[in-house]
Amino acid sequence: MSAEIMRREILEQPAVCDTLLSREEASLAPLVRRLQKDPPLGIVLAARGSSDHAATYARYFLEYMTGIPTLLAAPSLVSVYKRRPDFRRYLVIGVSQSGQGPDINAVMAEAARQGARTLGITNDPKSGLAKVSGHVLHLGAEKEQAVAATKTFTTELTGLALLAVMWMEDRGLMKQLRKIPEQMRQVLIDTDEAVERTAKKLKNLKACVVLGRGFQMGVAHEMGLKMKECAGVPALSYSTADFAHGPVSLAQGGFPVFLLSSPGKMEKEAFESTQDFVRRGASVYRVGLRDRYFSKLKKSKSLDLSMTAEADTHETLAPLLTILPGQWFAYHNALAKGMNPAMPKGLKKVTKTR
Amino acid sequence: MSAEIMRREILEQPAVCDTLLSREEASLAPLVRRLQKDPPLGIVLAARGSSDHAATYARYFLEYMTGIPTLLAAPSLVSVYKRRPDFRRYLVIGVSQSGQGPDINAVMAEAARQGARTLGITNDPKSGLAKVSGHVLHLGAEKEQAVAATKTFTTELTGLALLAVMWMEDRGLMKQLRKIPEQMRQVLIDTDEAVERTAKKLKNLKACVVLGRGFQMGVAHEMGLKMKECAGVPALSYSTADFAHGPVSLAQGGFPVFLLSSPGKMEKEAFESTQDFVRRGASVYRVGLRDRYFSKLKKSKSLDLSMTAEADTHETLAPLLTILPGQWFAYHNALAKGMNPAMPKGLKKVTKTR
Repeated sequence: MSAEIMRREILEQPAVCDTLLSREEASLAPLVRRLQKDPPLGIVLAARGSSDHAATYARYFLEYMTGIPTLLAAPSLVSVYKRRPDFRRYLVIGVSQSGQGPDINAVMAEAARQGARTLGITNDPKSGLAKVSGHVLHLGAEKEQAVAATKTFTTELTGLALLAVMWMEDRGLMKQLRKIPEQMRQVLIDTDEAVERTAKKLKNLKACVVLGRGFQMGVAHEMGLKMKECAGVPALSYSTADFAHGPVSLAQGGFPVFLLSSPGKMEKEAFESTQDFVRRGASVYRVGLRDRYFSKLKKSKSLDLSMTAEADTHETLAPLLTILPGQWFAYHNALAKGMNPAMPKGLKKVTKTR
Repeated sequence: MSAEIMRREILEQPAVCDTLLSREEASLAPLVRRLQKDPPLGIVLAARGSSDHAATYARYFLEYMTGIPTLLAAPSLVSVYKRRPDFRRYLVIGVSQSGQGPDINAVMAEAARQGARTLGITNDPKSGLAKVSGHVLHLGAEKEQAVAATKTFTTELTGLALLAVMWMEDRGLMKQLRKIPEQMRQVLIDTDEAVERTAKKLKNLKACVVLGRGFQMGVAHEMGLKMKECAGVPALSYSTADFAHGPVSLAQGGFPVFLLSSPGKMEKEAFESTQDFVRRGASVYRVGLRDRYFSKLKKSKSLDLSMTAEADTHETLAPLLTILPGQWFAYHNALAKGMNPAMPKGLKKVTKTR
């Protein structure tokens, strides 16, 4: 498999997200009506790997929008320890590109057995996940060939955002969500070459940390995963707040810190964190969307802004854009290292954990 | 502050956990009666840093014991985004050594405002967390001077386990829990020197990953954090299952993989993962308690068992023991590197994130 396949899949993202938005509103409508009529007492998201990072985003966005406490499942409690958490009055959402994970499907089967409302989000409408779920959102990303997920990740984000926005009937956000595919196209074009230059400069990258908070935390985990998968970089990823509780001691001696951010309520905190990390001696790479604090950032050899772009969207939707330079980075960094980002050594496309 | 202070605090753990068990049953009793009479529909845990790793353990143990879906809070939704998730029929538990974290206390204040049942678990009964919580569990670990938490972490685990065991009136587990302090003493003695030798051998450790699944996942995160804080090692930490979904590509060329485990339902999976990582070319360090699969492990230069001990306890309680060799490792590895594990550069004892 040539590296080009991954590049092509990265560039397909605006189109497949656009398709999802126009096609899946109809498939979500019956579930949304049920949820509006009789809101669940809690929301459970079950996922692994990249899909778990999409679920992490949704864990914030769904609770933000609905006010309903939302949790990430502990699949082993069901699949290994044979427990039956009481999901009856919960909405249980399984997220998996392949729909084949035995542990995720065990959670969904248990929820269905209890009569909970279930939604399966998958790229394979014939998968086990689709079969066991009461409602299905089809990612429609067409076959993803590269081992590292890109278009299935962003379609998962899009589908989960669509669910939250439809549920709350938020017309303003719906309008912004519909603009996202075009903005994705722009961000991909705007960042490709600049990120490539930075990725080449960092071809000897040995370790690093990727940070984000709130809506950007799942993106930080996903960028970190791409760096591990494609470029073999042991990238730590953290909530910026948890990073402050100990791991920040790593931020010195030129240690690379990638900080995801977008305009919004976190922009001041991102500004302050940037200044703090630079002062501690780290090399800081801002990733994502530029905000009004960018002009206040002191220019410095230890601060890189090449992985940022302009786009006007709500911060709850920004993750659909901020992951894009992250994907470019992993892709270009792998190439700079002479690795094939589309087919990392020792990985298979479908991973089945029990 | 001398490094010896951390050693002393590590060795104090059996005594302070013992004190907690004999003293805090009385303070938990009124809350337990309320929970038994009128079970909550969900459980929320709010914490940061080491306390968040104790909360990760409790997220498994409470759901395992009670069958009630349990979640880790997203504090920024309350503290930054001013949302009010509907916690009214939830039990909300804040965990913080200092009790001073503005974000955690914001979640607790919001829960209290809504009339939810709240429990603050802290080492400072006069802290903001204690004041805002309807019920308080006092860790009673006496002042922790070393920056890296050890005895406050294990007393948090002990307090959270005590809550779950009292709630379910599980006499068998209560008996085992009471034995834990004595077993801690034994594991600390049994592993100290062997771990020191391994930590010295690994004094050039540049990066690594720490893995655990289910009850051991929080321990893996905590061991990884100690390595970062005390010894400056960028240690990734993962659920063993999530590691398989991508990051496993790092497991090659001698990359060090620390795998936490204990006897129980995960022992076969730990055995298979060990064999798999060795086959891929990683250096595997087993950490925790030996199980019956240990005799089947093929001896190899790539497999190290020096950080394991014998102890007979239930796997749900094993985390109170398996973290101990992890603490020793971080402590001895820092010393081997000429660093002071008790006072890492750039860290303060109390971190306040908003």
